[in-house]
Amino acid sequence: MNYPNGLKKVHTNHEINYSNRGMPLESELNDSNEYYREIEKAYIYKKPTPIKITKVDYPSRDKAIITQAFFTVPSTTDYNGIYNGYYIDFEAKETKSNTSFTLSNIHPHQIQHIKNIDKQQGIAFLIVRFTNLNKTYLLMAKDLINFLETKNRKSIPIDYFQEKGYLIKDGYRPRIDYLKIIDQIIGGNKK
Amino acid sequence: MNYPNGLKKVHTNHEINYSNRGMPLESELNDSNEYYREIEKAYIYKKPTPIKITKVDYPSRDKAIITQAFFTVPSTTDYNGIYNGYYIDFEAKETKSNTSFTLSNIHPHQIQHIKNIDKQQGIAFLIVRFTNLNKTYLLMAKDLINFLETKNRKSIPIDYFQEKGYLIKDGYRPRIDYLKIIDQIIGGNKK
Repeated sequence: MNYPNGLKKVHTNHEINYSNRGMPLESELNDSNEYYREIEKAYIYKKPTPIKITKVDYPSRDKAIITQAFFTVPSTTDYNGIYNGYYIDFEAKETKSNTSFTLSNIHPHQIQHIKNIDKQQGIAFLIVRFTNLNKTYLLMAKDLINFLETKNRKSIPIDYFQEKGYLIKDGYRPRIDYLKIIDQIIGGNKK
Repeated sequence: MNYPNGLKKVHTNHEINYSNRGMPLESELNDSNEYYREIEKAYIYKKPTPIKITKVDYPSRDKAIITQAFFTVPSTTDYNGIYNGYYIDFEAKETKSNTSFTLSNIHPHQIQHIKNIDKQQGIAFLIVRFTNLNKTYLLMAKDLINFLETKNRKSIPIDYFQEKGYLIKDGYRPRIDYLKIIDQIIGGNKK
């Protein structure tokens, strides 16, 4: 695997909310997934944030309050589910950069997971939003993997998203109709 | 399908944690899923416990400690993933009863989720362990739904598991080879 080494957490002043909590892209995706569920099109959910619970208080018999816990590194992507019999799996990220998406935004575990899902005939992809440009791209696992295996770079330039990815137009409901892109790719076939 | 009843170790001192955290069935399933991943057979994970985080401390720039959080009701089942292109989704529960599995053990949201997945051509099921009997059954979504829609009962009698479910024999690795049962059901076809 050509994933560049030593990419753990490089803190710079700009960019990147590592925690991923409360980002607009996330809430737009959650709304879109809720919409897909309402119309019974797909059942795709964001997984709960992985944490390690270290202290729990029981103030009464049927109440539990977590009083100490830590965020842990996810082993998988944030979103998965089913669409027309297809297994769907993706990670969503925002970047403030106008030129590229830094690969350290995705944990090596998550990259490996995307590769695994792709090999198992699942539909795996990235959704990346360039927030300053207000452009959101979907990049299929195969194109992500191809980039990682052929380029020795720490970031994916926006050109690559323009060339290999799919621009997701903003909509009203769903706000981010990424399944429309998936339909184009799989040809709208029912599995 | 009927399996001969094999001789089994009788687990004696098991204490059941009704909250589902740290139960033996859960750790056996996690081990089994890890094994499936190691041999690249399937990528199935337990989802993180859903919690609502209400307070986070940042003792330093790159550290975060959750100091208050609450367990929340799950909207989906605990386990999902992909096996040979199939979307897999299930809930696992233990019961101390020798005679039936109380349906209140599964949240209505989770039942609805299982129905949704079944309609979308996913492979959804329950794994229920009768701990005192040391018997673990897999019950497919269709049979669960059929029971719920035709019987007006608050629990599923063990007879129903014996008749419609599949007994999962204990193994060494994987400890709970539930995909073997799934293979029998789907006829070992690659999707």
